[in-house]
Amino acid sequence: MPHADSPTLALACELMARPSVTPDDAGCLELLAGRLRAAGFGCERIDTGGVSNLWARRGKAQPVLCFAGHTDVVPPGPAAAWKTPPFEPTIIDGMLHGRGAADMKTSLAAFVTAIERFVAAHPDHDGSIALLLTSDEEGIATHGTVKVVEALAARGERLDYCIVGEPTSVHALGDMIKNGRRGSLSGTLRVKGRQGHVAYPQLARNPIHAFAPALAELAAIEWDQGNEFFPPTTWQVSNIHAGTGANNVIPGVCEVMFNFRFGSASSADGLKARTHEVLDRHGLDYEIDWHLSGKPFITGRGKLVAALSGAIADTLGIETELSTTGGTSDGRFIADICAEVVEFGPVNATIHQVDERIAVSAIEPLSQVYERTLRALLAA
Amino acid sequence: MPHADSPTLALACELMARPSVTPDDAGCLELLAGRLRAAGFGCERIDTGGVSNLWARRGKAQPVLCFAGHTDVVPPGPAAAWKTPPFEPTIIDGMLHGRGAADMKTSLAAFVTAIERFVAAHPDHDGSIALLLTSDEEGIATHGTVKVVEALAARGERLDYCIVGEPTSVHALGDMIKNGRRGSLSGTLRVKGRQGHVAYPQLARNPIHAFAPALAELAAIEWDQGNEFFPPTTWQVSNIHAGTGANNVIPGVCEVMFNFRFGSASSADGLKARTHEVLDRHGLDYEIDWHLSGKPFITGRGKLVAALSGAIADTLGIETELSTTGGTSDGRFIADICAEVVEFGPVNATIHQVDERIAVSAIEPLSQVYERTLRALLAA
Repeated sequence: MPHADSPTLALACELMARPSVTPDDAGCLELLAGRLRAAGFGCERIDTGGVSNLWARRGKAQPVLCFAGHTDVVPPGPAAAWKTPPFEPTIIDGMLHGRGAADMKTSLAAFVTAIERFVAAHPDHDGSIALLLTSDEEGIATHGTVKVVEALAARGERLDYCIVGEPTSVHALGDMIKNGRRGSLSGTLRVKGRQGHVAYPQLARNPIHAFAPALAELAAIEWDQGNEFFPPTTWQVSNIHAGTGANNVIPGVCEVMFNFRFGSASSADGLKARTHEVLDRHGLDYEIDWHLSGKPFITGRGKLVAALSGAIADTLGIETELSTTGGTSDGRFIADICAEVVEFGPVNATIHQVDERIAVSAIEPLSQVYERTLRALLAA
Repeated sequence: MPHADSPTLALACELMARPSVTPDDAGCLELLAGRLRAAGFGCERIDTGGVSNLWARRGKAQPVLCFAGHTDVVPPGPAAAWKTPPFEPTIIDGMLHGRGAADMKTSLAAFVTAIERFVAAHPDHDGSIALLLTSDEEGIATHGTVKVVEALAARGERLDYCIVGEPTSVHALGDMIKNGRRGSLSGTLRVKGRQGHVAYPQLARNPIHAFAPALAELAAIEWDQGNEFFPPTTWQVSNIHAGTGANNVIPGVCEVMFNFRFGSASSADGLKARTHEVLDRHGLDYEIDWHLSGKPFITGRGKLVAALSGAIADTLGIETELSTTGGTSDGRFIADICAEVVEFGPVNATIHQVDERIAVSAIEPLSQVYERTLRALLAA
């Protein structure tokens, strides 16, 4: 067995050899379920819409400490651009190379080896240990974690603590925990005018000109000042399109896509109302399709943060930083049925890039952090 | 011979039967040159770049009265959409139907019949009569009138009066002369930012946001108040594009196309400078490609306007209106070598449309207006 001295590295390599590009699980969940069943877990597949999901639980009591993550990876792109074949995990100069090394197959392996050691030492632990794994986190994510959460909610299962294994560390393993995420609210705006010839603007109504002052105002608004947990809410236009390419035609419509990233200092409904107020005040003829892709969630300094940051300090000698920056994650779904949700995993510097990699020296320590957290929360 | 009672109608129909879609002349110029040679004109072809051009002149002295126009027509589109085949001139209810009826084969026919009558009555007229005809006015117009004007300028030929036969009448033949045209100045603007993820706007620079206040300001500027001859200068954005469609990416560049239509109250250089001043003051990182597609030209109430408006009054009993509205025309090129340039022709209500048509009853009067103008300016 390769890497016999590092069971976490060995399992990570087994997972990375499976080309599980979203939504293809490529057998990863069965590999993990086999290990979990051997450790006394009941395993349940909640597959739907071509997506593979696993819900595994050991114990019936509260509190439930859940480890969550995904087996899918983003496409590697042209293999020729990689130093090593993306689905052949390879160690070069102390770095484990391969797609999923950081995002997030090493975390999955560390979950399992941490649990194996913990249950061997504490077969009659308090509460329950659970795993919630999906093969669609990197894709549209409509049949992944959200479906498992719905199934658990429907039968009244509640989680108390959840650690999502996303790669949250920045420079060194342990330097950052995500204890919440901003919400994401998107709008697709159509500002309507009246098409015409540029030589006769009095017969047309240019939607670009009409929208310009409102756009300038929206771009300058301070939506909130943030709070203890979240930075100030931001508003960004990602796309603006009007005109057919002809330089003598005033376009009839201007289409705009924008996005709010917002914390708990603002609400989605409040941001919508303020956007409409600006557009209405400028007398625009418009329509907006709104899409709330993620509500913000926040986990304060409670038992989970204390246990995890203590485990990091004990294992790595690092005082970890709490952060709510960055994009969305499956934590937004789990927060619906779980009071305390955080994300913690390896250094994210190379995720979604060619030559994705992590330091081999950080792999067993990651498993130890997870194991120490288990001990802090569930040791009998 | 059909329409023997109306030589102008007969010649217009001969021209309209030739499908001379830009830049194809389809034999129109030779037909006209044959008539002009018979009337004592020297005819010269100045063909270039696939475009057919004719320069015809009778006489060597100044003043030179030039009739200018084009044999090309815009495409008819699907023939099935027409009541009559677009290249089979047909009279229905007193209206001559067919592509080019108004824009501007009837004007060409009226030039020729007016000249034929005039030179028969005044074989030793004052000055010179000229025709400047091209087969590319409706297209990109880079090898049409502009090339003939360059050739004439190169050998020192100057015109004194020019009537462009564009359809300038609005409700009834004779109600409007165009005695000038606005200039057209286009700009293609690239506002540069720095691409990034919408979740991390502090690491990016959104060019849409950066441009918004400048756009609002430019759209609100009063560039000038117009003057005796021209309406106020207008500025219109025809196209704005930024973003790849993804809603989580701040685009790196915002591309904008805009156009000034300006009169003699502003200059192209002045408008450029004021645009740069606004963009610079807003601290934008940008570049602009400028394109001056037409300088404004204006012909005041001199001998040509007096002769033409008198001819209209005598023939039609109408007091004509001078106007500088509308798009550009080949008059902008001719103004470089001709002190007085006006445009006058039939009613333009159906130009570039299906079922293009003009009133048959207006065809011989158009020829009479041109003939009376010849008499007023060149009768010995």
